[in-house]
Amino acid sequence: MSHGAADSTTIVIYGASGDLTRRKLIPALYSLYERGKLPESINIVGYARRPYSHDDFKNEVHGPLQDVLKDKYKPEVWEKFSQHLYYVRGDLSTKADHEEAEHFLSSLENGGSNRLYYLATAPEYYAPVVECLRDLHLNVEDTGWRRIVVEKPFGRDLKTATDLDEVLHTAFNETQIFRIDHFLGKETVQNILFFRFANAIFEPLWNRNYVDHVQITAAESVDIEGRAGYYDKAGVLRDMFQNHMLQLLCLVTMEPPLAFNAESLRLEKTKVLRALRPAQMGNTVRAQYEGYLDEPGVAPNSQTPTYAALKLYIDNWRWQDVPFYVRSGKALERKSSEISVQFRRPPHLLFDLPKGKKLKPNVLALCIQPDEGIHLRFETKTPVSSDIQSVDMEFKYTDSFRDVSLPDAYERLLQDALLGDNSLFISDREINLSWKLIDNIIEGWAGPQAPPLVTYERGSWGPKESDLLLEDDGRVWRIRCGQNQK
Amino acid sequence: MSHGAADSTTIVIYGASGDLTRRKLIPALYSLYERGKLPESINIVGYARRPYSHDDFKNEVHGPLQDVLKDKYKPEVWEKFSQHLYYVRGDLSTKADHEEAEHFLSSLENGGSNRLYYLATAPEYYAPVVECLRDLHLNVEDTGWRRIVVEKPFGRDLKTATDLDEVLHTAFNETQIFRIDHFLGKETVQNILFFRFANAIFEPLWNRNYVDHVQITAAESVDIEGRAGYYDKAGVLRDMFQNHMLQLLCLVTMEPPLAFNAESLRLEKTKVLRALRPAQMGNTVRAQYEGYLDEPGVAPNSQTPTYAALKLYIDNWRWQDVPFYVRSGKALERKSSEISVQFRRPPHLLFDLPKGKKLKPNVLALCIQPDEGIHLRFETKTPVSSDIQSVDMEFKYTDSFRDVSLPDAYERLLQDALLGDNSLFISDREINLSWKLIDNIIEGWAGPQAPPLVTYERGSWGPKESDLLLEDDGRVWRIRCGQNQK
Repeated sequence: MSHGAADSTTIVIYGASGDLTRRKLIPALYSLYERGKLPESINIVGYARRPYSHDDFKNEVHGPLQDVLKDKYKPEVWEKFSQHLYYVRGDLSTKADHEEAEHFLSSLENGGSNRLYYLATAPEYYAPVVECLRDLHLNVEDTGWRRIVVEKPFGRDLKTATDLDEVLHTAFNETQIFRIDHFLGKETVQNILFFRFANAIFEPLWNRNYVDHVQITAAESVDIEGRAGYYDKAGVLRDMFQNHMLQLLCLVTMEPPLAFNAESLRLEKTKVLRALRPAQMGNTVRAQYEGYLDEPGVAPNSQTPTYAALKLYIDNWRWQDVPFYVRSGKALERKSSEISVQFRRPPHLLFDLPKGKKLKPNVLALCIQPDEGIHLRFETKTPVSSDIQSVDMEFKYTDSFRDVSLPDAYERLLQDALLGDNSLFISDREINLSWKLIDNIIEGWAGPQAPPLVTYERGSWGPKESDLLLEDDGRVWRIRCGQNQK
Repeated sequence: MSHGAADSTTIVIYGASGDLTRRKLIPALYSLYERGKLPESINIVGYARRPYSHDDFKNEVHGPLQDVLKDKYKPEVWEKFSQHLYYVRGDLSTKADHEEAEHFLSSLENGGSNRLYYLATAPEYYAPVVECLRDLHLNVEDTGWRRIVVEKPFGRDLKTATDLDEVLHTAFNETQIFRIDHFLGKETVQNILFFRFANAIFEPLWNRNYVDHVQITAAESVDIEGRAGYYDKAGVLRDMFQNHMLQLLCLVTMEPPLAFNAESLRLEKTKVLRALRPAQMGNTVRAQYEGYLDEPGVAPNSQTPTYAALKLYIDNWRWQDVPFYVRSGKALERKSSEISVQFRRPPHLLFDLPKGKKLKPNVLALCIQPDEGIHLRFETKTPVSSDIQSVDMEFKYTDSFRDVSLPDAYERLLQDALLGDNSLFISDREINLSWKLIDNIIEGWAGPQAPPLVTYERGSWGPKESDLLLEDDGRVWRIRCGQNQK
């Protein structure tokens, strides 16, 4: 993948004392280590401000690791894995600290090594860290490759995202940058592409001739969980739409890529994002759950939406005039992420149905969580009578892969980053095009055409305005996934 | 449906002392009665040679009814139902006997009545009974409708079938004739049409552009069960192909009919049968199970096949060049009837698969028995690895219709006959076109180009020659249904 790959690899985690490191990165690295998927000669170095020793750091991550892994934790694996863990104290924006850290890293590496820099810090430190790395020439691929992993959010609008990209690009080229959205690392998200392109029978139906509309839902049952500091500034569009929702939309609608690689995937996703028609305000719904304004830390007159529903259109040959209804929100009835493709009705009804009964359209539901699987709703004859009834053809991942526990998204993505495969990471162009669309809506919501900011009951499926968005088109929101768990 | 329908209806069963009457007709009529689906004023009259009284006849059918219905039998329903049962003694070919029976029927009906004549006799009595009915003008629709139900076999070749039709048509027109093949009364067979035409997503794929080939299997695990007298003269082509197999082929391949009625369905099925290319001998396999020649009653040098496999082609716009592999036989591994539509492989492979691994094509399996349901095989990503794996999306009738016991095919068909709906009955043209195809093969098998008559192991899936029929085309037989029961 990369020129001049060295024999050993160092992962430097900036912001190593944070939650992400403890709950996600260390457990993912542990699992990769256990499965033999880490390079043989590996150093994992935490970098943060706290004055830890190596052992302090190991102790600090050991407990959370056991919590996360539960009975998959094995002391003998930890024993070996933890020998690869190190810690360096340093301030994120202080060049001298980075320089000092580099002394330690060099001594550790004892010659050439690849480097994976992981920005697990708050977003405001992304630029300072990158600048330090650049100024110290730690971005130079002399003794091995250099890659940087950036956590979302990638800016909070087009302007800040482009600013961040500019800094990143002063030090790294686009193939060295791994913008991570753990959502894309989920097996079921990757499976959207396998489903579409490893099978010959769906693609012929996957266009305006056969698809009536598509719904994408990412519902969370939790509220903002005390994270008003972040959330009240972000809101649901930045938190969920700019990244997850638009990425899902891309995966479902893009043309078949030439190959399953970063270049081809990014090209096709970018084409979708470019074809997305700017949302009309009348096709947007924004809402807050009841009581949001009373959450500690939320501004008393906050206009931040915790729920949004959009009707989007893709202006291209394949999707012209097919509406994409996209919604996400907090404090909803249950956690559920689902893409549901609703097909047109049969063109001609040749059966005598009971009076007033209409044929229902076929629906293909891709369940991302929970109950990962695929459901195909089709019509069948009701036995005895000549009535008709909708039934589901079902596939659940857990039925077919009972003995395989789906790996955490971070595992897959860290492994890909180590292999230099950006397929499941997001490019600068995607980020920017997504922000363009989202900025446009956020601006509209501050303007005279804005839809009213409405409220919805906690534990509901959102405000009635969201239902009306579909009802006005003669359609209804549909949720299939996790239905059996209710 | 019919002009001059009377208030009361009489069903006359010719051959009422036979197994069909006891095991199928009476139980079906009982169930229809219980469900309130028989006309209110109904007489069911058995006609046979045995010198029974009405009560003898009731007693004769009472035991088998209980055997068949098991815990669905209800004494209080029998009590009422049996009041509608009568018996007339008579010889099937003796006009005087029919005349005498008519006196009884008239007295019973006390005025106008509809009549459903049911030929539950051996085939050689079909013509004599029809001639008696005709000569006595019992076919004339004066005081109500007159319909006749004919059991298969409908002749034993084109000649005898046309002869039978000729006789039938001297007395009844085609809309009065109900040629019954219980196979078509099965819910799952009817569901083929619902599946295809009540859903919009299958029809676009249902043609030579997307379908690689189709397999139709009707496997029986039983051998000829001592019925050499019938079977050794018939053989598998007459027993299974001329009727079931070709009907299934029609249902799977026909164009969308204008409506779900006899006229439209027959038109479309006839078009398929007319488009069927005469089978080349090289595309046929014939075989006997080991030990067939030792069965009591089988001619020592019998050439009768108990197994056949055919490769058929339909010369029309939709199916040109798509092979239809059709097989049926006795003493096979298990009872299973299934239609499996195998689609083409994806045109372009964009995933890096493990070396030597090929994408498998999608397969849609319609399971007729056992385990009635629908299976869609598709490819999915194997978790963790980037390997690919075939999985099944599944629908089982029993899961969705747990509380509904699928009614016996005879129930549905008797009900339809009483309603005058021939949709699920076979027309003379279908019969004749089917015989033409089958006669052609039977003649070929007696000629110089005949494939060798081979043997196969009991409990196997047939001879290796049958496998080669597909292997030579790079394909394999596939059986999905009932797999879980093995």
